[in-house]
Amino acid sequence: MSMQDDVRLPTVQDVREAAGRIAAHSVKTPLLESPFLNDRMGARVLLKAEVLQRTGSFKFRGAYNAISQIDRSVHPGGVVACSSGNHAQGVAEAGRLCGVPAVIVMPSDAPAIKVARTKRSGAEVVFYDRYSEDRDAIARDIAERRQSVYVAPFDNARVIAGQGTVGLEIAAQARAAGAELQAVLMPCSGGGLAAGIALAIEADSPGTRVYTVEPEAFDDYARSLKSGQPEQNAPGKTSICDALLVAQPGKLTFALNKDRLAGGLAVSDAEASAAVAFAYNELKLVVEPGGAVALAAILSGRYPLSGKPVAVVLSGGNMDPAMLADIMEQQAGSA
Amino acid sequence: MSMQDDVRLPTVQDVREAAGRIAAHSVKTPLLESPFLNDRMGARVLLKAEVLQRTGSFKFRGAYNAISQIDRSVHPGGVVACSSGNHAQGVAEAGRLCGVPAVIVMPSDAPAIKVARTKRSGAEVVFYDRYSEDRDAIARDIAERRQSVYVAPFDNARVIAGQGTVGLEIAAQARAAGAELQAVLMPCSGGGLAAGIALAIEADSPGTRVYTVEPEAFDDYARSLKSGQPEQNAPGKTSICDALLVAQPGKLTFALNKDRLAGGLAVSDAEASAAVAFAYNELKLVVEPGGAVALAAILSGRYPLSGKPVAVVLSGGNMDPAMLADIMEQQAGSA
Repeated sequence: MSMQDDVRLPTVQDVREAAGRIAAHSVKTPLLESPFLNDRMGARVLLKAEVLQRTGSFKFRGAYNAISQIDRSVHPGGVVACSSGNHAQGVAEAGRLCGVPAVIVMPSDAPAIKVARTKRSGAEVVFYDRYSEDRDAIARDIAERRQSVYVAPFDNARVIAGQGTVGLEIAAQARAAGAELQAVLMPCSGGGLAAGIALAIEADSPGTRVYTVEPEAFDDYARSLKSGQPEQNAPGKTSICDALLVAQPGKLTFALNKDRLAGGLAVSDAEASAAVAFAYNELKLVVEPGGAVALAAILSGRYPLSGKPVAVVLSGGNMDPAMLADIMEQQAGSA
Repeated sequence: MSMQDDVRLPTVQDVREAAGRIAAHSVKTPLLESPFLNDRMGARVLLKAEVLQRTGSFKFRGAYNAISQIDRSVHPGGVVACSSGNHAQGVAEAGRLCGVPAVIVMPSDAPAIKVARTKRSGAEVVFYDRYSEDRDAIARDIAERRQSVYVAPFDNARVIAGQGTVGLEIAAQARAAGAELQAVLMPCSGGGLAAGIALAIEADSPGTRVYTVEPEAFDDYARSLKSGQPEQNAPGKTSICDALLVAQPGKLTFALNKDRLAGGLAVSDAEASAAVAFAYNELKLVVEPGGAVALAAILSGRYPLSGKPVAVVLSGGNMDPAMLADIMEQQAGSA
């Protein structure tokens, strides 16, 4: 089995079919509004709360759309995936629901909460050393030995189509709320969520601009969109946003995104932390740093609002309580 | 001005009028569902997320309904209220929106987050010593000197009517979700939220049973509903549920509740803490201990589910981050 089982670029029709496929198991997350946030920003900021999604992040959507289509007679070993966290949980839970065995290759320093939640869904976890081992080689070896399918975290057409259901919901919910969206902003790592949302928004909310938001040291998508070709991040950088540490745009995602996105923004770790604290204090939502970067772009003014409504994706909420405690303490000190 | 400006018992018609009055400023909070919680309980548990309400608790609803009806020509001094927390914020914010000055009498040991948020809405805060001073006397004195209206936290018909809008929304949202509710459970202190919800549910979801949930040491409502007359809590007790420390049922609330409620439940502080941790880990919601007791009644089995859908109110989320950190650490130790 090849590492990439579907290299055709997905279309909005694939996104619509994914919506039907995942409907019985995914949460149609609410598009929330906070009067306090709206007052502060002088504009309606509609919050797509994917922290309320099954497994605590949007990743379940793409994983379920991919795994529910696997032919077990061809792939008796089920699925294998590499992920430090949210994709791992999405794959594990989709595997459980579909009755498909799942093996997750995780770095040995992955957040404890993400490891525990992955195991809870019944997945087998194989650890590797982030600094000395090649996770792709490990996954490839497992896939060959077990006749299982590798499910890429973003460069997979079915995964992208599943993530796009977030965009279909945003378009419909914003319309129902009487908000004509100027822009949609979402956290970005490999670009799968962005690509799926871009397909959906292009079809269902034309005129709305789509932006990625990344951590400063991992702004490969922002630079790639600017230069028109895939750019790499400098090695050796770190960020508190453990969900967004990818070196370069995906091939499929960049092919979809390069002509559809309006641009990419980046925020500092301090801005991401301030957004996590804002979510705790004002929204009463648990949002992990990587899940909060699009909100951070709004709060920090990196994306200047013009009074028109925007939608922001809060993409994940799987954060060890100790990390939240540290962030809240640090924010209290800096306030 | 008397301390009690409206002693007539409210009806569901008052609740419906309150809904119209607060609509432009309150959040129609979502009725959430968690697949993980549903699986665990073997029943649909619909979560009315009042932590997402303006000010972070349902208290804004009643406060706004009362304060928006004040005649400033008669009461130039605005409003005065006594509260350690969530009612204070509701009154302060409603006062700000209505252009009505608000004075809040707060215990000097109120949670810092609740004091800060009350002041942020522009209210004047007067502190008193919980153990040596009479807060009612202080409030009465302020009301007389300033020609202001005392807004009781629960024994006020307009406040009760405002809280009842939670019940109207639950009934309509449960119906839209295809859930025929067996019961609604909500945290209870003086009984205002329970009374309002009971009026709404009686009219819009007849057959659904309504239950209060209290901390063990403050189970006056449970005992009062059982005996048929108002019972007092023993003095000197404490609970982690700082929002629910009331000595006895309100007069108006008990008059409404005694024939409408199916009964009262109580949970331990450990059970409330476990529910706070569950909300953090699984629901990605910030719920304070007092706001989590109805969820605790479900999770602990104090309210045994029968497979039929129930609704649970998560009534408030104003919790100092240090308290959450303590609870999460303690829960990790006990897990």
